[in-house]
Amino acid sequence: MSATACSGGILSVVGTGPAGAAWMSPETAALIDEATDLVGYGPYLDRVAKPHHCCHPSDNRVELVRAAQALDLAAEGRHVAVVSGGDPGIFAMAAAICEVLANKASPAWQDVKLGIYPGISALQAAAARTGAPLGHDFCVMSLSDVLKPWSVIRKRITLAAQADFAMAFYNPRSSHRPWQLGEALEVLRTVQAAETSVIFARAVGRADESLHFTTLAAADPTLVDMQTLVLIGNSLARNFEHGGRQWVYSPRDYPEQLAET
Amino acid sequence: MSATACSGGILSVVGTGPAGAAWMSPETAALIDEATDLVGYGPYLDRVAKPHHCCHPSDNRVELVRAAQALDLAAEGRHVAVVSGGDPGIFAMAAAICEVLANKASPAWQDVKLGIYPGISALQAAAARTGAPLGHDFCVMSLSDVLKPWSVIRKRITLAAQADFAMAFYNPRSSHRPWQLGEALEVLRTVQAAETSVIFARAVGRADESLHFTTLAAADPTLVDMQTLVLIGNSLARNFEHGGRQWVYSPRDYPEQLAET
Repeated sequence: MSATACSGGILSVVGTGPAGAAWMSPETAALIDEATDLVGYGPYLDRVAKPHHCCHPSDNRVELVRAAQALDLAAEGRHVAVVSGGDPGIFAMAAAICEVLANKASPAWQDVKLGIYPGISALQAAAARTGAPLGHDFCVMSLSDVLKPWSVIRKRITLAAQADFAMAFYNPRSSHRPWQLGEALEVLRTVQAAETSVIFARAVGRADESLHFTTLAAADPTLVDMQTLVLIGNSLARNFEHGGRQWVYSPRDYPEQLAET
Repeated sequence: MSATACSGGILSVVGTGPAGAAWMSPETAALIDEATDLVGYGPYLDRVAKPHHCCHPSDNRVELVRAAQALDLAAEGRHVAVVSGGDPGIFAMAAAICEVLANKASPAWQDVKLGIYPGISALQAAAARTGAPLGHDFCVMSLSDVLKPWSVIRKRITLAAQADFAMAFYNPRSSHRPWQLGEALEVLRTVQAAETSVIFARAVGRADESLHFTTLAAADPTLVDMQTLVLIGNSLARNFEHGGRQWVYSPRDYPEQLAET
C-alpha cells in the first residue's frame, strides 16, 4: 500500500458476482488488484482482499456513508474499489455512489475518476441454475420496504402480474421483515394461476446452495431468508425433468390468443 | 478436436458477455476451452473460437433448430458449448434449449449432461457505463414482435410505466421493425413525464460504443438500431455531470408521498 496522494484518485465501483471467483469478470478482478483501498460490506471484502489492500469494511445499510467515505479516499489520491456482491448496478452500491456524487457535498470529489463496471447478479445465477425462468420479459424488484413504502411494492407486484412478467425478488424476507413475502405471494394469487412456477434459490454458487421448486399455491414463505432469491415464472412457464432433476423456463414466445386477456 | 464419442456428452449453455474477454466469466472461459464443439450465432463464435474447436455457426432467428443440433451433438458424446452473447438466460439460448429439451423430441438426449451458466448481459454493461439507471425496481423487455404480438408489448409498457419501473429494452429497432420503438415511446409519453431520462447505449464495450442521453419528450427513435440498448429511468431518475460527462441514476429510495399517485 503506497501512501502517495496524487491529486485526483480513482473510484472503481465493482461487483464480485454472487459467489466465487469463477463468476467475477476479469475486468473486475484486475480493478480490485490495482486498488489500494477496498470499501464495502465486510463479507464482500473478505472474498477478494489481498495483503496489499487497505480494507474499509462497513456494515450493511450504511450505503450513503460508505459512498462518501469512498469518494473522500479517492479525493486523497487513493485508488479505491467499492466492492458489492453481484452487480453494483442492481440493488447495490452504484446508485448510492451516484446519489452522493450528484449532491456534490464535497468540492474535493470533482477530480475523482469514476468508473462503474458490470458484474453477474444473483438473479442470473439463480435463473441459470434452474433453467430459464427469466427467458421472457421480466421485472426485478426488492421486497424490502426500508427505502420505499409497502403500498408501492404491492402496487408494482399487481401491475407486474397483470403484465404477465416473469419476476425476480431480491431481499424477500428477513427476521426484521417476516411478513412481506407472504403478502407479496397473496397479491400474486389474486392475479396469477395457482400452478404458476415459483422457485426459492438460496445461496446459489455457495457450499450451502439449495433450490426449491414450488407453485404459487404451495409456496411457503417461511422457507425463505435473505440469502434467497425468489423467482416467479410467467403464466406460460413450464417445469420439466432432465438429468434426474427439475428445471423451469418461461418460453420465448407468447401466443396471440393470450394477448387480450 | 477428439473424435471419441463417449455415451452421454455435455451441453454447456454459456454467454460471452456483451463485448470482449474482460466481461466473460472465468467459468465460461473454462467451459469454452473444454468444449470440443461450439454452437451459436456466427459472430459470437468468432469471439471465442480456438483451433481445437469444431464450430457450428448458424444465422440469427433459428434458435430452436440450433438447440436441437446442439443436443444431437452432445448426445453423440461431444462436449458442446452453446454460445450466446450477453447472458444466455436473458433473451438468448437458455430458453430455447429448455423448450426443445422439455418437448423430448429425441430419446437420445436424455443422457446429456446439461449446465446453464450466467453471464453479464447488455443491460448491465449499458447501465454501468451510464451510472445506475436501473438502481431501483426495473423491468426488462424485448421490443421485438416476432415472438409475441405487439398488443402484449404495448400493454406491458403501459403497466410498467404505471408501476414506475425503470426499464431496459432489448431489440428496440431494426430495418424490419422500424416503427415499434417510436410507438413504445408514444405509449410511455401517455403515462410518464416529458423529462423522464432516456438513454440510447450503443455497442457498449466495443470500438464503436456511443452513449446518447436524452428525455422522453426529445427521444428520436431513428438514432437507434439493433446494436442499441434503450434504458428508461424511473420518475425520480436524475442526471448529473461528473468528470466532464453525463451520468444518470434511479435513486434507491422512493418517497411515501409518491405512493398514492
